[in-house]
Amino acid sequence: MNGAESLVRSLLAGGVNVCFTNPGTSEIHLVAALDRVTEIRCVLGLFEGVVTGAADGYARMAERAACTLLHLGPGFGNGLANLHNASRAHVPMVNLIGQHPGYHLAHNTPLTSDIEAIARPYSKWLRTSGSSSEVGRDAMDAIVAARSASGQIATLIVPADVAWSEGGVVAGMPAPGKAALPSASNVERSEAMLRSGLKIAILLSGRALHGEGLASAGRIAAATGAKLFAPYPVARLERGAGIAPVERVQYILEQAIEQLKEFRQLILVGAQPPVAYFAYPGKNSVMTSPECEIQILATAEEDCVGALEALETELSIRGTRVTGEKSNRPPLPSGPITLAGLAATVGALLPENAIVVDESMTSGRGMMAATKGSPPHDWLGNTGGSIGIALPLAVGAAVACPERKVLCLTADGSGMYTLQALWTMAREGLKVTTVVFANHDYAVLKREFSYLGVGEPGRRALEMFEIGRPDLDWVHLAKGLGVAGTRVTTLEGFAKALREGFESGGPSLIEVPL
Amino acid sequence: MNGAESLVRSLLAGGVNVCFTNPGTSEIHLVAALDRVTEIRCVLGLFEGVVTGAADGYARMAERAACTLLHLGPGFGNGLANLHNASRAHVPMVNLIGQHPGYHLAHNTPLTSDIEAIARPYSKWLRTSGSSSEVGRDAMDAIVAARSASGQIATLIVPADVAWSEGGVVAGMPAPGKAALPSASNVERSEAMLRSGLKIAILLSGRALHGEGLASAGRIAAATGAKLFAPYPVARLERGAGIAPVERVQYILEQAIEQLKEFRQLILVGAQPPVAYFAYPGKNSVMTSPECEIQILATAEEDCVGALEALETELSIRGTRVTGEKSNRPPLPSGPITLAGLAATVGALLPENAIVVDESMTSGRGMMAATKGSPPHDWLGNTGGSIGIALPLAVGAAVACPERKVLCLTADGSGMYTLQALWTMAREGLKVTTVVFANHDYAVLKREFSYLGVGEPGRRALEMFEIGRPDLDWVHLAKGLGVAGTRVTTLEGFAKALREGFESGGPSLIEVPL
Repeated sequence: MNGAESLVRSLLAGGVNVCFTNPGTSEIHLVAALDRVTEIRCVLGLFEGVVTGAADGYARMAERAACTLLHLGPGFGNGLANLHNASRAHVPMVNLIGQHPGYHLAHNTPLTSDIEAIARPYSKWLRTSGSSSEVGRDAMDAIVAARSASGQIATLIVPADVAWSEGGVVAGMPAPGKAALPSASNVERSEAMLRSGLKIAILLSGRALHGEGLASAGRIAAATGAKLFAPYPVARLERGAGIAPVERVQYILEQAIEQLKEFRQLILVGAQPPVAYFAYPGKNSVMTSPECEIQILATAEEDCVGALEALETELSIRGTRVTGEKSNRPPLPSGPITLAGLAATVGALLPENAIVVDESMTSGRGMMAATKGSPPHDWLGNTGGSIGIALPLAVGAAVACPERKVLCLTADGSGMYTLQALWTMAREGLKVTTVVFANHDYAVLKREFSYLGVGEPGRRALEMFEIGRPDLDWVHLAKGLGVAGTRVTTLEGFAKALREGFESGGPSLIEVPL
Repeated sequence: MNGAESLVRSLLAGGVNVCFTNPGTSEIHLVAALDRVTEIRCVLGLFEGVVTGAADGYARMAERAACTLLHLGPGFGNGLANLHNASRAHVPMVNLIGQHPGYHLAHNTPLTSDIEAIARPYSKWLRTSGSSSEVGRDAMDAIVAARSASGQIATLIVPADVAWSEGGVVAGMPAPGKAALPSASNVERSEAMLRSGLKIAILLSGRALHGEGLASAGRIAAATGAKLFAPYPVARLERGAGIAPVERVQYILEQAIEQLKEFRQLILVGAQPPVAYFAYPGKNSVMTSPECEIQILATAEEDCVGALEALETELSIRGTRVTGEKSNRPPLPSGPITLAGLAATVGALLPENAIVVDESMTSGRGMMAATKGSPPHDWLGNTGGSIGIALPLAVGAAVACPERKVLCLTADGSGMYTLQALWTMAREGLKVTTVVFANHDYAVLKREFSYLGVGEPGRRALEMFEIGRPDLDWVHLAKGLGVAGTRVTTLEGFAKALREGFESGGPSLIEVPL
């Protein structure tokens, strides 16, 4: 068995069953091994940002390690922006990158690059495999590293001669590690704050925002009156009718300050203290009131679910029932397109158990309010602020959950970074309904321009914010990538297209001109 | 004057008059400064790989420093693959990247990244500006660094508070530096080899492949019988009727070995010894014969043109006439599409003074032979092997040379990485005629699979090499991005579309199904 095959069989032993790929010549032996090991599904992306973003979406929903196969340093570079987002989502991910053999690297050929240097900023674990007999073990170490703490990015560089040489050894999966519980004093101090009678908020992140973690947080909120929040950059939030309501911290600094000002206490569960995305001249970046006492219950690296359960025990509230969100869909609106009408339409039609991927930017700000009483669903956001994640994230979520319907909300500007993802949706027949809010603008930049106190943008600045002239035609783009698209001009048309998309059993795209 | 304006005015003083941009909030003050300093043309790309590839194309043709404006670490990351190619093209390029102020970085907000670490692998010069009073000087230092040696990448990170703070100082341009001449002994040894009577080749790169450099090399070849070669990854090669003929080293190892085996001596002018792109089991990567003596006349960092002229002086051949390529267009073919027919059509119709950007991969191997006697033109290739450069490179070349016609040859697989470049062609009205060779394959990987001795690819491997199912429809993709496209099914149709493209005065796209 050569190194490549031992690597792939070790991945399989470690629980990897999907690999998102965009390989090149240096990875051919890995492709050949994946050709033989049929238990791992290979999903091709035509650009590496699609590959890494899809791996992120897969990991968020499958809750197992995602895997990518990338071509040398530049291929990893193309995937870097969505790896930035993935690193902020704390997902378990293993990247495999080919490399020239050492004797070939010495020639400084065109594709020579310092892959370790390129990969290091976003790889919490990084190794270049030294031999075919070790590469199986290296792969397993990468999986263990990726799954440690709350999930992180591990990158294994595989020289071509390590892959093609005989002597491969398949590694076995060690007993899974478990994230550490926080210290007892964190739990005790949190308990004391919850009992103090002062207004208190709990800011949840990671696993605390869905499943057992959110259920536990919901019981704590119901028993103590604490209010639950999620950060604006949310990886995965379970919400909808019957689920403990969680409010998202606002993006705009002043709005967030207003939202949080009443709280004198804040408990962090896997989250960081809320701060502004960007710095603004003369403004403090901190969103909480200066009098607010902040207590960490658990860091993102600790066991957030275990911490919440320990807090429940400390509070002796195990029997409490969660006060779930009321079932309440908005009525289906009609008439001309408005942002509120679009949001209400989504709220009215969102299928039960849907996965909503949201990078709708300025156009989608009303979406969460309109869907809060819709049937239970998951909400996936952009965790790192590098735009161009929605379409790839939807690919990964749909691969992880083939039985669920995915609604992908993207702006036209953000969608353009990774539009190649539509092709993967078509090839894999993924149940993704994509809505493109086509305002022909980097609208957020226009707003930030005045918000930063720079005055009114002139013609030349506007040319960098307006992405019309020519207008992008998403119906043609989708068709070019194998996805049926339609443009709607009324809310009735939007509702019809949305229904048809959900019922189609495959991908579709709706362009909404704004 | 704030830091941002002093930076932009310093760029202008340093000779920068085009900036390729994809800015974000952190760069708003730089956008506002570019809004005011109207002498710098801003060209927006909808993806950073377009921005960096366009800057490369611009620098290759304009022979002045190119400039980019990118958004934080992830934005630089998206541009990294084409920066890899640009670094191998030895072009002068200044990247400007925004950054959070230090006090904001401390909060570890979503878009926080270690930009220096991300930028370092491809930045020969790298600095984070410390204050508004220094950032003008920093910009000038970056330009000087970018223009030093044969051209390199300089990256300046601009914290937002450095940009928005008052106290900016515009820097003046220092006297331009000049690349060093090689040692006299290199010239003398090269002269002795050329006089030895042994079969000799000269491998040229960088500035030695066009203008005065190529003219000088052509005189040396005419006087001594030496044969001129260019590396396979060629940045810019001047060629066609009347120009000294230069043969490109073959991509395929065995073919290159055959091509070079007769030479017992090789002189390198800005080039590295020819080696295989990739390593193959049991094969040596070196392309020259083991008996071949290799002599460096000048490295890529030295003054290659000056070195060739010094060699001419040493050889006392200053009056020699170049033996230019004979004017000879192939006859216009007709009938069904064949690769040879496509190449002959290009050879028959290529306009005088055209710029050919070539990333046609396996489909375009006959293009250079068919165009060698066409009217003089420049040929721009992929220098670093990271595919997805053709469309952006064509953007930059067309911006640099608005009076020249650009023919962009791309494969469907490589075109998909940076198809957003078509939108910039449309917005800027660039005279680029793009030909997409649509073989629905990563054909090079299929060939490499068998070449690597892995056997026949199975169904799962083929799924990673075949990019059909669904087929990409480039006519629709182009239309979606604002470019008129057409699909041709005969050589007559191809000739008609090519003529119309050249005559249109703007961008167009021709899909050639193979």
